[in-house]
Amino acid sequence: MRNLNEDNITQAVLARLVDMPDNRLKTIVVNLIQHLHAFARETKLTEEEWKQGIDFLTATGHKCTDTRQEFILLSDTIGLSQLVVAQNHQRSSNATEQTVFGPFHVPNSPLLPPRGADITNGAPGDPCFISARVMTTNGEPLPGAEVDVWQADSEGYYDVQDTQWSSDNMSLRARFITDESGTLSIRTVNPKNYPIPTDGTVGQMLEAMHRHPMRPAHIHFMVKKPGYDTLITHIFSDGDPYLDSDTVFGVRSNCIGRFLKHPAGKAPDGTKMEVPFHTITCDLVLEPVVES
Amino acid sequence: MRNLNEDNITQAVLARLVDMPDNRLKTIVVNLIQHLHAFARETKLTEEEWKQGIDFLTATGHKCTDTRQEFILLSDTIGLSQLVVAQNHQRSSNATEQTVFGPFHVPNSPLLPPRGADITNGAPGDPCFISARVMTTNGEPLPGAEVDVWQADSEGYYDVQDTQWSSDNMSLRARFITDESGTLSIRTVNPKNYPIPTDGTVGQMLEAMHRHPMRPAHIHFMVKKPGYDTLITHIFSDGDPYLDSDTVFGVRSNCIGRFLKHPAGKAPDGTKMEVPFHTITCDLVLEPVVES
Repeated sequence: MRNLNEDNITQAVLARLVDMPDNRLKTIVVNLIQHLHAFARETKLTEEEWKQGIDFLTATGHKCTDTRQEFILLSDTIGLSQLVVAQNHQRSSNATEQTVFGPFHVPNSPLLPPRGADITNGAPGDPCFISARVMTTNGEPLPGAEVDVWQADSEGYYDVQDTQWSSDNMSLRARFITDESGTLSIRTVNPKNYPIPTDGTVGQMLEAMHRHPMRPAHIHFMVKKPGYDTLITHIFSDGDPYLDSDTVFGVRSNCIGRFLKHPAGKAPDGTKMEVPFHTITCDLVLEPVVES
Repeated sequence: MRNLNEDNITQAVLARLVDMPDNRLKTIVVNLIQHLHAFARETKLTEEEWKQGIDFLTATGHKCTDTRQEFILLSDTIGLSQLVVAQNHQRSSNATEQTVFGPFHVPNSPLLPPRGADITNGAPGDPCFISARVMTTNGEPLPGAEVDVWQADSEGYYDVQDTQWSSDNMSLRARFITDESGTLSIRTVNPKNYPIPTDGTVGQMLEAMHRHPMRPAHIHFMVKKPGYDTLITHIFSDGDPYLDSDTVFGVRSNCIGRFLKHPAGKAPDGTKMEVPFHTITCDLVLEPVVES
Protein backbone atom coordinates (compact mmCIF):
# COMPACT_ATOMS: atom_id res chain seq x y z
CA MET A 1 0.00 0.00 0.00
CA ARG A 2 1.34 3.42 -0.95
CA ASN A 3 -1.49 5.67 0.05
CA LEU A 4 -2.24 4.94 3.67
CA ASN A 5 -4.61 7.17 5.56
CA GLU A 6 -6.83 6.87 8.61
CA ASP A 7 -9.45 4.94 6.64
CA ASN A 8 -7.35 2.19 5.13
CA ILE A 9 -4.33 1.85 7.41
CA THR A 10 -5.88 -0.65 9.82
CA GLN A 11 -6.50 -3.16 7.04
CA ALA A 12 -3.00 -2.50 5.70
CA VAL A 13 -1.45 -3.27 9.08
CA LEU A 14 -3.51 -6.44 9.56
CA ALA A 15 -2.64 -7.59 6.03
CA ARG A 16 1.03 -7.44 7.10
CA LEU A 17 0.34 -10.18 9.70
CA VAL A 18 -0.70 -12.94 7.31
CA ASP A 19 2.46 -14.95 7.91
CA MET A 20 2.36 -14.75 11.71
CA PRO A 21 2.83 -18.37 12.80
CA ASP A 22 1.38 -18.32 16.36
CA ASN A 23 -2.38 -18.29 15.87
CA ARG A 24 -3.30 -17.41 19.44
CA LEU A 25 -0.80 -14.53 19.54
CA LYS A 26 -2.10 -13.41 16.15
CA THR A 27 -5.68 -13.32 17.47
CA ILE A 28 -4.54 -11.17 20.41
CA VAL A 29 -2.42 -8.79 18.33
CA VAL A 30 -5.04 -8.35 15.59
CA ASN A 31 -7.73 -7.55 18.16
CA LEU A 32 -5.49 -5.13 20.07
CA ILE A 33 -4.42 -3.25 16.93
CA GLN A 34 -8.05 -2.92 15.83
CA HIS A 35 -9.05 -1.50 19.20
CA LEU A 36 -6.08 0.88 19.43
CA HIS A 37 -6.75 2.20 15.93
CA ALA A 38 -10.47 2.58 16.70
CA PHE A 39 -9.55 4.49 19.86
CA ALA A 40 -7.35 6.92 17.93
CA ARG A 41 -9.98 7.39 15.20
CA GLU A 42 -13.00 7.75 17.49
CA THR A 43 -11.29 10.32 19.71
CA LYS A 44 -9.60 11.95 16.71
CA LEU A 45 -6.43 11.85 18.76
CA THR A 46 -4.08 14.75 18.02
CA GLU A 47 -0.33 14.44 17.61
CA GLU A 48 0.23 16.35 20.88
CA GLU A 49 -2.09 13.95 22.75
CA TRP A 50 -0.37 10.98 21.13
CA LYS A 51 2.97 12.39 22.34
CA GLN A 52 1.59 12.77 25.88
CA GLY A 53 0.59 9.10 25.71
CA ILE A 54 4.11 8.11 24.59
CA ASP A 55 5.59 10.15 27.45
CA PHE A 56 3.18 8.58 29.97
CA LEU A 57 4.08 5.03 28.90
CA THR A 58 7.80 5.86 28.91
CA ALA A 59 7.66 7.32 32.44
CA THR A 60 5.61 4.32 33.58
CA GLY A 61 8.30 2.00 32.23
CA HIS A 62 11.07 3.99 33.87
CA LYS A 63 9.26 3.70 37.24
CA CYS A 64 9.36 -0.10 37.09
CA THR A 65 12.10 -1.84 39.07
CA ASP A 66 12.62 -5.28 40.59
CA THR A 67 10.39 -4.25 43.51
CA ARG A 68 7.99 -1.82 41.85
CA GLN A 69 5.62 -2.65 39.00
CA GLU A 70 3.92 0.51 37.74
CA PHE A 71 2.34 -1.17 34.69
CA ILE A 72 0.55 -3.67 36.97
CA LEU A 73 -0.60 -0.75 39.11
CA LEU A 74 -1.88 0.92 35.94
CA SER A 75 -3.73 -2.22 34.86
CA ASP A 76 -5.18 -2.59 38.37
CA THR A 77 -6.40 1.01 38.60
CA ILE A 78 -8.23 0.90 35.26
CA GLY A 79 -9.96 -2.36 36.21
CA LEU A 80 -8.17 -4.42 33.56
CA SER A 81 -6.54 -6.80 36.06
CA GLN A 82 -9.81 -7.61 37.83
CA LEU A 83 -11.56 -8.13 34.48
CA VAL A 84 -8.91 -10.67 33.43
CA VAL A 85 -9.03 -12.40 36.83
CA ALA A 86 -12.83 -12.59 36.85
CA GLN A 87 -13.21 -14.03 33.36
CA ASN A 88 -10.63 -16.75 34.05
CA HIS A 89 -12.10 -17.90 37.37
CA GLN A 90 -15.84 -18.23 37.13
CA ARG A 91 -17.28 -19.62 40.35
CA SER A 92 -20.25 -21.72 41.32
CA SER A 93 -22.52 -19.85 43.67
CA ASN A 94 -20.85 -20.58 47.01
CA ALA A 95 -17.18 -20.84 46.06
CA THR A 96 -15.02 -17.93 47.24
CA GLU A 97 -14.51 -15.35 44.50
CA GLN A 98 -11.12 -14.64 42.95
CA THR A 99 -9.60 -11.17 43.16
CA VAL A 100 -6.40 -9.41 42.13
CA PHE A 101 -3.04 -10.85 43.14
CA GLY A 102 -1.44 -7.49 43.90
CA PRO A 103 2.28 -6.68 43.75
CA PHE A 104 3.28 -7.60 47.33
CA HIS A 105 3.31 -11.40 47.34
CA VAL A 106 6.67 -12.99 48.14
CA PRO A 107 7.21 -16.64 47.21
CA ASN A 108 8.55 -19.14 49.76
CA SER A 109 7.45 -17.35 52.90
CA PRO A 110 7.98 -19.30 56.16
CA LEU A 111 6.07 -22.58 56.42
CA LEU A 112 4.44 -22.57 59.88
CA PRO A 113 2.10 -24.89 61.80
CA PRO A 114 -1.58 -24.14 61.01
CA ARG A 115 -2.62 -23.86 64.66
CA GLY A 116 -1.34 -21.13 66.94
CA ALA A 117 1.34 -19.52 64.72
CA ASP A 118 2.04 -15.80 65.04
CA ILE A 119 3.07 -14.09 61.78
CA THR A 120 3.43 -10.60 63.30
CA ASN A 121 7.27 -10.78 63.40
CA GLY A 122 7.76 -7.19 64.56
CA ALA A 123 4.97 -5.50 62.60
CA PRO A 124 3.02 -2.74 64.38
CA GLY A 125 -0.74 -3.02 64.83
CA ASP A 126 -3.55 -4.26 67.06
CA PRO A 127 -3.49 -8.03 67.52
CA CYS A 128 -5.86 -9.98 65.30
CA PHE A 129 -6.72 -13.68 65.41
CA ILE A 130 -7.69 -15.33 62.12
CA SER A 131 -9.75 -18.49 62.02
CA ALA A 132 -10.15 -19.68 58.45
CA ARG A 133 -11.68 -22.90 57.14
CA VAL A 134 -10.63 -24.33 53.79
CA MET A 135 -13.49 -26.36 52.37
CA THR A 136 -15.26 -27.71 49.30
CA THR A 137 -18.43 -26.22 47.84
CA ASN A 138 -20.23 -29.07 49.67
CA GLY A 139 -18.91 -27.83 53.02
CA GLU A 140 -16.38 -30.63 53.52
CA PRO A 141 -13.07 -29.61 55.11
CA LEU A 142 -10.01 -29.78 52.88
CA PRO A 143 -6.87 -31.12 54.60
CA GLY A 144 -3.48 -30.79 52.92
CA ALA A 145 -4.23 -27.45 51.25
CA GLU A 146 -1.39 -24.90 51.14
CA VAL A 147 -2.60 -21.54 52.43
CA ASP A 148 -0.37 -18.56 51.69
CA VAL A 149 -1.24 -15.48 53.78
CA TRP A 150 0.12 -11.92 53.40
CA GLN A 151 -0.98 -8.47 54.47
CA ALA A 152 0.03 -4.90 55.32
CA ASP A 153 0.64 -3.51 58.81
CA SER A 154 -1.49 -1.04 60.73
CA GLU A 155 -0.10 1.80 58.59
CA GLY A 156 -0.81 0.06 55.31
CA TYR A 157 2.78 -0.96 54.54
CA TYR A 158 3.98 -4.39 53.53
CA ASP A 159 7.30 -5.65 54.91
CA VAL A 160 8.94 -5.31 51.49
CA GLN A 161 8.16 -1.58 51.29
CA ASP A 162 11.32 -0.40 53.08
CA THR A 163 9.70 -0.62 56.48
CA GLN A 164 11.82 -0.22 59.58
CA TRP A 165 10.12 -2.99 61.52
CA SER A 166 10.91 -5.96 59.30
CA SER A 167 14.47 -7.24 59.58
CA ASP A 168 14.06 -10.05 57.05
CA ASN A 169 11.10 -8.93 54.84
CA MET A 170 9.20 -11.96 56.09
CA SER A 171 6.72 -10.31 58.43
CA LEU A 172 2.94 -10.57 58.10
CA ARG A 173 3.38 -13.38 55.62
CA ALA A 174 3.61 -17.16 55.98
CA ARG A 175 2.40 -20.44 54.49
CA PHE A 176 0.47 -23.22 56.17
CA ILE A 177 -0.68 -26.76 55.31
CA THR A 178 -4.19 -27.44 56.59
CA ASP A 179 -4.73 -30.46 58.87
CA GLU A 180 -7.68 -32.87 58.90
CA SER A 181 -10.07 -30.12 60.03
CA GLY A 182 -9.07 -27.82 57.13
CA THR A 183 -8.70 -25.06 59.71
CA LEU A 184 -6.14 -22.30 60.14
CA SER A 185 -5.89 -20.50 63.51
CA ILE A 186 -3.17 -17.84 63.52
CA ARG A 187 -2.26 -14.52 65.03
CA THR A 188 -1.43 -11.38 63.06
CA VAL A 189 -2.24 -7.63 63.22
CA ASN A 190 -5.51 -5.97 62.31
CA PRO A 191 -5.30 -4.72 58.69
CA LYS A 192 -6.06 -1.14 57.78
CA ASN A 193 -7.05 0.62 54.58
CA TYR A 194 -4.14 2.23 52.74
CA PRO A 195 -3.18 4.14 49.58
CA ILE A 196 -1.42 2.42 46.71
CA PRO A 197 1.95 4.06 45.85
CA THR A 198 1.20 7.49 44.35
CA ASP A 199 4.69 8.78 43.53
CA GLY A 200 4.57 7.52 39.94
CA THR A 201 2.52 7.96 36.78
CA VAL A 202 -0.44 6.06 38.25
CA GLY A 203 -0.60 8.57 41.10
CA GLN A 204 -0.60 11.39 38.54
CA MET A 205 -3.36 9.63 36.60
CA LEU A 206 -5.55 9.17 39.68
CA GLU A 207 -5.09 12.85 40.52
CA ALA A 208 -6.11 13.88 36.99
CA MET A 209 -9.15 11.61 37.37
CA HIS A 210 -10.02 13.12 40.76
CA ARG A 211 -9.90 9.62 42.25
CA HIS A 212 -8.54 8.58 45.64
CA PRO A 213 -5.78 5.95 45.77
CA MET A 214 -7.23 3.93 48.67
CA ARG A 215 -7.78 0.22 49.12
CA PRO A 216 -10.12 -1.09 51.85
CA ALA A 217 -8.43 -3.06 54.66
CA HIS A 218 -7.81 -6.68 53.64
CA ILE A 219 -5.75 -9.81 54.13
CA HIS A 220 -4.47 -11.76 51.10
CA PHE A 221 -4.94 -15.50 50.75
CA MET A 222 -3.72 -17.92 48.10
CA VAL A 223 -4.96 -21.50 48.55
CA LYS A 224 -3.58 -24.37 46.49
CA LYS A 225 -4.91 -27.89 46.45
CA PRO A 226 -4.64 -30.38 43.57
CA GLY A 227 -8.02 -30.87 41.87
CA TYR A 228 -9.17 -27.34 42.73
CA ASP A 229 -8.74 -23.98 41.01
CA THR A 230 -6.02 -22.15 42.95
CA LEU A 231 -7.86 -19.50 44.95
CA ILE A 232 -6.27 -16.04 44.98
CA THR A 233 -8.41 -13.73 47.06
CA HIS A 234 -8.61 -11.20 49.87
CA ILE A 235 -10.80 -11.06 52.94
CA PHE A 236 -11.95 -7.44 53.13
CA SER A 237 -13.01 -5.76 56.35
CA ASP A 238 -16.77 -5.21 56.54
CA GLY A 239 -17.65 -1.59 57.24
CA ASP A 240 -14.48 -0.21 55.64
CA PRO A 241 -15.31 3.17 54.04
CA TYR A 242 -13.49 2.19 50.82
CA LEU A 243 -15.33 -1.07 50.13
CA ASP A 244 -17.41 0.57 47.42
CA SER A 245 -14.53 2.51 45.88
CA ASP A 246 -11.49 0.20 46.05
CA THR A 247 -9.04 1.92 43.70
CA VAL A 248 -8.14 -1.42 42.07
CA PHE A 249 -11.77 -2.67 41.78
CA GLY A 250 -10.99 -5.88 43.70
CA VAL A 251 -13.97 -6.19 46.06
CA ARG A 252 -16.26 -9.19 45.60
CA SER A 253 -19.43 -9.67 47.65
CA ASN A 254 -18.47 -12.98 49.21
CA CYS A 255 -14.96 -11.86 50.17
CA ILE A 256 -16.07 -9.51 52.95
CA GLY A 257 -15.58 -10.64 56.55
CA ARG A 258 -16.31 -9.10 59.90
CA PHE A 259 -13.25 -8.12 61.94
CA LEU A 260 -14.75 -8.09 65.47
CA LYS A 261 -13.15 -5.93 68.16
CA HIS A 262 -12.84 -7.38 71.68
CA PRO A 263 -11.76 -5.76 74.96
CA ALA A 264 -8.59 -7.00 76.69
CA GLY A 265 -9.11 -10.52 77.97
CA LYS A 266 -8.86 -14.11 76.81
CA ALA A 267 -7.97 -14.54 73.12
CA PRO A 268 -9.12 -17.45 70.91
CA ASP A 269 -5.73 -19.15 71.35
CA GLY A 270 -6.08 -19.02 75.15
CA THR A 271 -3.62 -16.14 75.57
CA LYS A 272 -4.60 -13.51 78.15
CA MET A 273 -4.48 -10.23 76.16
CA GLU A 274 -3.61 -7.00 78.00
CA VAL A 275 -4.90 -4.88 75.10
CA PRO A 276 -8.01 -4.98 72.91
CA PHE A 277 -7.80 -7.39 69.99
CA HIS A 278 -9.73 -8.40 66.86
CA THR A 279 -10.98 -11.71 65.54
CA ILE A 280 -11.96 -12.67 62.01
CA THR A 281 -13.58 -15.93 60.98
CA CYS A 282 -13.86 -16.80 57.30
CA ASP A 283 -14.42 -19.66 54.91
CA LEU A 284 -12.19 -20.26 51.90
CA VAL A 285 -14.33 -22.36 49.57
CA LEU A 286 -12.47 -23.92 46.64
CA GLU A 287 -13.91 -24.42 43.16
CA PRO A 288 -13.21 -27.91 41.78
CA VAL A 289 -11.37 -28.07 38.47
CA VAL A 290 -13.62 -29.50 35.79
CA GLU A 291 -11.60 -31.54 33.31
CA SER A 292 -12.48 -30.44 29.84
CA MET B 1 -19.76 -1.84 43.62
CA ARG B 2 -18.87 -4.97 45.58
CA ASN B 3 -19.41 -7.68 43.04
CA LEU B 4 -17.33 -6.77 40.05
CA ASN B 5 -16.93 -9.27 37.25
CA GLU B 6 -16.11 -9.17 33.56
CA ASP B 7 -19.65 -8.05 32.70
CA ASN B 8 -20.05 -5.07 34.99
CA ILE B 9 -16.52 -3.85 35.71
CA THR B 10 -16.25 -1.53 32.71
CA GLN B 11 -19.27 0.50 33.82
CA ALA B 12 -17.93 0.51 37.39
CA VAL B 13 -14.59 1.92 36.24
CA LEU B 14 -16.21 4.59 34.08
CA ALA B 15 -18.55 5.56 36.93
CA ARG B 16 -15.42 6.33 38.97
CA LEU B 17 -14.51 9.08 36.46
CA VAL B 18 -17.56 11.30 36.99
CA ASP B 19 -15.56 14.00 38.76
CA MET B 20 -12.75 14.18 36.21
CA PRO B 21 -12.42 17.90 35.45
CA ASP B 22 -10.66 17.89 32.06
CA ASN B 23 -13.38 16.98 29.56
CA ARG B 24 -11.11 16.27 26.63
CA LEU B 25 -8.82 14.04 28.72
CA LYS B 26 -11.93 12.32 30.09
CA THR B 27 -13.17 11.58 26.56
CA ILE B 28 -9.82 10.05 25.70
CA VAL B 29 -9.50 8.00 28.89
CA VAL B 30 -13.10 6.71 28.77
CA ASN B 31 -12.70 5.61 25.16
CA LEU B 32 -9.33 3.95 25.81
CA ILE B 33 -10.60 2.04 28.86
CA GLN B 34 -13.63 0.81 26.91
CA HIS B 35 -11.43 -0.44 24.08
CA LEU B 36 -8.86 -2.09 26.39
CA HIS B 37 -11.62 -3.87 28.33
CA ALA B 38 -13.30 -4.97 25.09
CA PHE B 39 -9.95 -6.30 23.88
CA ALA B 40 -9.48 -8.38 27.05
CA ARG B 41 -13.06 -9.68 26.91
CA GLU B 42 -13.17 -10.47 23.20
CA THR B 43 -9.87 -12.35 23.28
CA LYS B 44 -10.70 -13.89 26.68
CA LEU B 45 -7.19 -12.89 27.67
CA THR B 46 -5.63 -15.26 30.21
CA GLU B 47 -3.63 -14.18 33.25
CA GLU B 48 -0.45 -15.60 31.70
CA GLU B 49 -1.04 -13.59 28.51
CA TRP B 50 -1.81 -10.47 30.56
CA LYS B 51 1.49 -10.99 32.39
CA GLN B 52 3.35 -11.30 29.07
CA GLY B 53 1.80 -7.97 28.07
CA ILE B 54 2.96 -6.36 31.32
CA ASP B 55 6.48 -7.72 30.76
CA PHE B 56 6.50 -6.48 27.14
CA LEU B 57 5.49 -2.95 28.16
CA THR B 58 8.03 -2.93 31.00
CA ALA B 59 10.88 -4.04 28.74
CA THR B 60 9.80 -1.44 26.15
CA GLY B 61 9.97 1.26 28.82
CA HIS B 62 13.37 0.09 29.99
CA LYS B 63 14.69 0.31 26.41
CA CYS B 64 13.80 4.02 26.21
CA THR B 65 16.63 6.50 26.79
CA ASP B 66 17.32 10.10 25.83
CA THR B 67 18.33 8.91 22.35
CA ARG B 68 16.11 5.85 21.88
CA GLN B 69 12.31 5.86 21.90
CA GLU B 70 11.01 2.29 21.78
CA PHE B 71 7.37 3.28 22.43
CA ILE B 72 7.39 5.53 19.35
CA LEU B 73 8.92 2.67 17.38
CA LEU B 74 6.10 0.44 18.67
CA SER B 75 3.45 2.98 17.70
CA ASP B 76 5.08 3.38 14.27
CA THR B 77 5.27 -0.35 13.55
CA ILE B 78 1.61 -1.00 14.37
CA GLY B 79 0.50 1.89 12.14
CA LEU B 80 -0.80 4.01 15.00
CA SER B 81 1.57 6.92 14.34
CA GLN B 82 0.66 7.17 10.66
CA LEU B 83 -3.06 6.96 11.51
CA VAL B 84 -2.72 9.90 13.92
CA VAL B 85 -0.64 11.89 11.42
CA ALA B 86 -3.08 11.26 8.55
CA GLN B 87 -6.24 12.22 10.42
CA ASN B 88 -4.69 15.48 11.63
CA HIS B 89 -3.39 16.62 8.22
CA GLN B 90 -5.98 16.10 5.57
CA ARG B 91 -4.79 17.46 2.24
CA SER B 92 -6.40 18.95 -0.81
CA SER B 93 -5.64 16.91 -3.87
CA ASN B 94 -2.28 18.33 -4.87
CA ALA B 95 -0.74 19.25 -1.51
CA THR B 96 2.14 17.04 -0.40
CA GLU B 97 0.98 14.35 2.03
CA GLN B 98 2.10 14.22 5.65
CA THR B 99 3.98 11.20 6.98
CA VAL B 100 5.61 10.08 10.24
CA PHE B 101 8.15 12.32 11.94
CA GLY B 102 10.43 9.47 12.99
CA PRO B 103 12.84 9.50 15.94
CA PHE B 104 15.94 10.97 14.25
CA HIS B 105 15.14 14.66 13.90
CA VAL B 106 17.48 17.04 15.75
CA PRO B 107 16.31 20.60 16.41
CA ASN B 108 18.49 23.56 15.51
CA SER B 109 20.57 21.92 12.83
CA PRO B 110 22.89 24.27 10.89
CA LEU B 111 21.18 27.08 8.96
CA LEU B 112 22.74 27.06 5.47
CA PRO B 113 22.20 29.02 2.24
CA PRO B 114 19.48 27.41 0.05
CA ARG B 115 21.62 27.29 -3.08
CA GLY B 116 24.72 25.14 -3.36
CA ALA B 117 25.12 23.96 0.26
CA ASP B 118 26.60 20.50 0.94
CA ILE B 119 25.18 18.73 4.02
CA THR B 120 27.31 15.58 3.64
CA ASN B 121 29.76 16.59 6.41
CA GLY B 122 31.74 13.35 6.39
CA ALA B 123 28.90 10.90 5.72
CA PRO B 124 29.59 7.96 3.36
CA GLY B 125 27.51 7.48 0.22
CA ASP B 126 27.15 8.30 -3.45
CA PRO B 127 26.72 12.04 -4.09
CA CYS B 128 23.13 13.19 -4.59
CA PHE B 129 21.86 16.61 -5.67
CA ILE B 130 18.43 17.65 -4.41
CA SER B 131 16.36 20.27 -6.19
CA ALA B 132 13.17 20.98 -4.26
CA ARG B 133 10.52 23.65 -4.87
CA VAL B 134 8.36 24.88 -2.01
CA MET B 135 5.05 26.09 -3.42
CA THR B 136 1.36 26.70 -2.87
CA THR B 137 -1.40 24.42 -4.16
CA ASN B 138 -1.77 26.99 -6.96
CA GLY B 139 1.82 26.42 -8.05
CA GLU B 140 3.17 29.73 -6.76
CA PRO B 141 6.66 29.64 -5.22
CA LEU B 142 6.86 30.22 -1.46
CA PRO B 143 9.82 32.37 -0.38
CA GLY B 144 10.75 32.60 3.31
CA ALA B 145 9.78 29.03 4.15
CA GLU B 146 12.04 27.16 6.59
CA VAL B 147 12.99 23.78 5.17
CA ASP B 148 14.50 21.27 7.62
CA VAL B 149 16.19 18.32 5.89
CA TRP B 150 17.56 15.13 7.49
CA GLN B 151 18.43 11.64 6.30
CA ALA B 152 20.48 8.49 6.85
CA ASP B 153 23.77 7.64 5.17
CA SER B 154 24.40 4.96 2.54
CA GLU B 155 24.33 2.27 5.25
CA GLY B 156 21.03 3.48 6.72
CA TYR B 157 22.48 5.16 9.80
CA TYR B 158 21.72 8.65 11.03
CA ASP B 159 24.55 10.72 12.49
CA VAL B 160 23.11 10.39 16.01
CA GLN B 161 23.30 6.58 15.90
CA ASP B 162 26.85 6.33 17.21
CA THR B 163 28.34 6.55 13.77
CA GLN B 164 32.10 6.94 13.35
CA TRP B 165 31.85 9.45 10.53
CA SER B 166 30.04 12.28 12.30
CA SER B 167 32.18 14.33 14.65
CA ASP B 168 29.40 16.70 15.73
CA ASN B 169 26.16 14.76 15.06
CA MET B 170 25.24 17.41 12.53
CA SER B 171 25.80 15.52 9.31
CA LEU B 172 23.15 14.92 6.66
CA ARG B 173 20.94 17.48 8.34
CA ALA B 174 20.48 21.23 7.92
CA ARG B 175 17.91 24.01 7.66
CA PHE B 176 17.33 26.48 4.84
CA ILE B 177 15.20 29.55 4.20
CA THR B 178 13.81 29.60 0.68
CA ASP B 179 14.50 32.66 -1.51
CA GLU B 180 12.14 34.36 -3.98
CA SER B 181 12.09 31.28 -6.25
CA GLY B 182 11.09 28.97 -3.35
CA THR B 183 13.83 26.64 -4.53
CA LEU B 184 16.37 24.56 -2.62
CA SER B 185 19.44 23.20 -4.44
CA ILE B 186 21.74 21.23 -2.17
CA ARG B 187 24.17 18.33 -2.15
CA THR B 188 23.91 15.26 0.06
CA VAL B 189 24.37 11.47 -0.31
CA ASN B 190 22.01 9.06 -1.98
CA PRO B 191 19.71 7.50 0.66
CA LYS B 192 19.35 3.73 1.03
CA ASN B 193 16.71 1.51 2.54
CA TYR B 194 17.52 0.38 6.09
CA PRO B 195 16.18 -1.60 9.06
CA ILE B 196 14.75 0.18 12.11
CA PRO B 197 16.60 -0.77 15.34
CA THR B 198 15.76 -4.42 16.10
CA ASP B 199 17.62 -4.97 19.37
CA GLY B 200 14.58 -4.15 21.52
CA THR B 201 11.03 -5.34 22.10
CA VAL B 202 9.85 -4.00 18.73
CA GLY B 203 12.45 -6.18 17.01
CA GLN B 204 11.14 -9.17 18.97
CA MET B 205 7.58 -8.25 18.01
CA LEU B 206 8.40 -7.98 14.30
CA GLU B 207 10.13 -11.36 14.46
CA ALA B 208 7.06 -12.93 16.13
CA MET B 209 4.95 -11.37 13.37
CA HIS B 210 7.28 -12.69 10.64
CA ARG B 211 7.69 -9.10 9.40
CA HIS B 212 10.83 -7.46 8.07
CA PRO B 213 12.11 -4.28 9.80
CA MET B 214 12.91 -2.36 6.59
CA ARG B 215 12.07 1.17 5.54
CA PRO B 216 12.36 2.23 1.88
CA ALA B 217 15.08 4.80 1.10
CA HIS B 218 13.91 8.34 1.89
CA ILE B 219 14.88 11.88 2.81
CA HIS B 220 12.99 13.73 5.58
CA PHE B 221 11.61 17.23 5.10
CA MET B 222 9.85 19.56 7.50
CA VAL B 223 8.63 22.81 5.93
CA LYS B 224 7.32 25.69 8.04
CA LYS B 225 5.66 28.82 6.73
CA PRO B 226 3.12 30.98 8.58
CA GLY B 227 -0.38 30.55 7.12
CA TYR B 228 0.34 26.96 6.03
CA ASP B 229 0.07 23.61 7.81
CA THR B 230 3.62 22.62 8.75
CA LEU B 231 4.56 19.86 6.33
CA ILE B 232 6.35 16.85 7.81
CA THR B 233 7.05 14.38 5.07
CA HIS B 234 9.60 12.16 3.32
CA ILE B 235 10.56 11.88 -0.31
CA PHE B 236 10.78 8.14 -0.95
CA SER B 237 12.89 6.60 -3.67
CA ASP B 238 10.80 5.27 -6.55
CA GLY B 239 11.56 1.62 -7.31
CA ASP B 240 12.68 0.81 -3.78
CA PRO B 241 11.70 -2.82 -3.02
CA TYR B 242 10.21 -1.81 0.35
CA LEU B 243 7.82 0.90 -0.88
CA ASP B 244 4.85 -1.45 -0.49
CA SER B 245 5.94 -2.85 2.85
CA ASP B 246 7.47 0.07 4.78
CA THR B 247 7.60 -1.30 8.32
CA VAL B 248 6.22 1.97 9.75
CA PHE B 249 3.48 2.36 7.10
CA GLY B 250 4.69 5.83 6.11
CA VAL B 251 4.51 5.73 2.30
CA ARG B 252 2.07 8.13 0.59
CA SER B 253 1.50 8.09 -3.17
CA ASN B 254 2.55 11.67 -3.80
CA CYS B 255 5.72 11.44 -1.68
CA ILE B 256 7.60 9.21 -4.11
CA GLY B 257 10.34 10.78 -6.18
CA ARG B 258 12.74 9.51 -8.80
CA PHE B 259 16.41 9.43 -7.77
CA LEU B 260 18.12 9.45 -11.19
CA LYS B 261 21.60 7.98 -11.55
CA HIS B 262 24.11 9.82 -13.75
CA PRO B 263 27.59 8.87 -14.94
CA ALA B 264 30.57 10.92 -13.82
CA GLY B 265 30.43 14.37 -15.36
CA LYS B 266 28.94 17.78 -14.76
CA ALA B 267 26.65 18.00 -11.73
CA PRO B 268 23.63 20.32 -11.42
CA ASP B 269 25.70 22.75 -9.32
CA GLY B 270 28.34 22.95 -12.06
CA THR B 271 30.85 20.74 -10.21
CA LYS B 272 32.73 18.25 -12.36
CA MET B 273 32.06 14.88 -10.68
CA GLU B 274 34.68 12.13 -10.93
CA VAL B 275 32.19 9.49 -9.81
CA PRO B 276 28.57 8.67 -10.70
CA PHE B 277 25.99 10.75 -8.87
CA HIS B 278 22.22 10.99 -8.36
CA THR B 279 19.71 13.80 -8.75
CA ILE B 280 16.25 14.15 -7.27
CA THR B 281 13.73 16.85 -8.13
CA CYS B 282 10.64 17.25 -6.01
CA ASP B 283 7.85 19.65 -5.14
CA LEU B 284 6.88 20.40 -1.56
CA VAL B 285 3.33 21.74 -1.83
CA LEU B 286 1.97 23.34 1.33
CA GLU B 287 -1.66 23.16 2.49
CA PRO B 288 -3.03 26.54 3.57
CA VAL B 289 -4.39 26.74 7.10
CA VAL B 290 -8.13 27.35 7.06
CA GLU B 291 -9.16 29.51 10.00
CA SER B 292 -12.06 27.86 11.76
